[in-house]
Amino acid sequence: MAETKKGLIIVHTGPGKGKTTAALGLALRAVGSGLKVLMVQFIKGSWHYGELDAAKAFGDKFVLRPMGRGFVKLGGEIDPEDKRAADEAWAFAREKIFSGEYDMIILDEINYAISYGLLAVGPVLDTLKRKPEMVHVVLTGRNAPADLIALADLVTEMREVKHPYQKGIEAQRGIEY
Amino acid sequence: MAETKKGLIIVHTGPGKGKTTAALGLALRAVGSGLKVLMVQFIKGSWHYGELDAAKAFGDKFVLRPMGRGFVKLGGEIDPEDKRAADEAWAFAREKIFSGEYDMIILDEINYAISYGLLAVGPVLDTLKRKPEMVHVVLTGRNAPADLIALADLVTEMREVKHPYQKGIEAQRGIEY
Repeated sequence: MAETKKGLIIVHTGPGKGKTTAALGLALRAVGSGLKVLMVQFIKGSWHYGELDAAKAFGDKFVLRPMGRGFVKLGGEIDPEDKRAADEAWAFAREKIFSGEYDMIILDEINYAISYGLLAVGPVLDTLKRKPEMVHVVLTGRNAPADLIALADLVTEMREVKHPYQKGIEAQRGIEY
Repeated sequence: MAETKKGLIIVHTGPGKGKTTAALGLALRAVGSGLKVLMVQFIKGSWHYGELDAAKAFGDKFVLRPMGRGFVKLGGEIDPEDKRAADEAWAFAREKIFSGEYDMIILDEINYAISYGLLAVGPVLDTLKRKPEMVHVVLTGRNAPADLIALADLVTEMREVKHPYQKGIEAQRGIEY
């Protein structure tokens, strides 16, 4: 097969730490290479002060857009407000994917929004199939749908080997948030 | 167990993508939270233009120090120059861990340097055990030694589910480097 250059569909999934963090690293590397990056937050709680403040150093080269509400409770009914927030985040992200304004769009925790029924996977797959060729799209969150993994170019699963909460160490500013 | 705040020993290992990238994301978040970060590169080739350029946006809050030589060939004899470079990188990193100048020190690809015999694991473990309490140390690279995993607070294994090279897509600036 001949080698080609194209925008990649990248998925960070699995139960371990580092899915959003590795997406931030991708953003940093991309911005450093002159690309413009947009990161849309589908679920509030996946990022915090650290990245929002750091992104400011890059001005309009790295835009973070928090649009989600809090993590949804397992087994609970879907709050229409959560669904509305996810729909709005998706409509915004979808438009930006096609807008030509950004070289990389990170859909942070979108897998979570899909797996909890806040967002349908069909329109997401459809958009990825028809995205502008050179745009990179990064999708994070546990439980990535099988059809998304099948479509993606690069999929990494983060597996948790050990977590500090197991040792009684609390979450710390600059590390966890 | 009572919850405590302390500097964490964090390991990113496994054969998948995202070990160095997630460390860059940690650095970005830490810098955004007002921490000072040093990233020492033990093996040349693990980072490139993107992160070097991006780090400049943060001035002396985020220092990247490339000190390694190229990746060592599997099964080959150890080049004394590779060993010397690894020793020098370690001496530098070790001094900085104790110096109080940085809140987070990232030892990028140090696991690789250890597993290829360029660096002994003993002095690394010894330093981690005696490090200043609030300093975070992040160690990346595949084949993290078992004793390091046992000592660490947070260990994530990156597992490769799918890689674009399998699909004939070449490495791209802003993503892979």
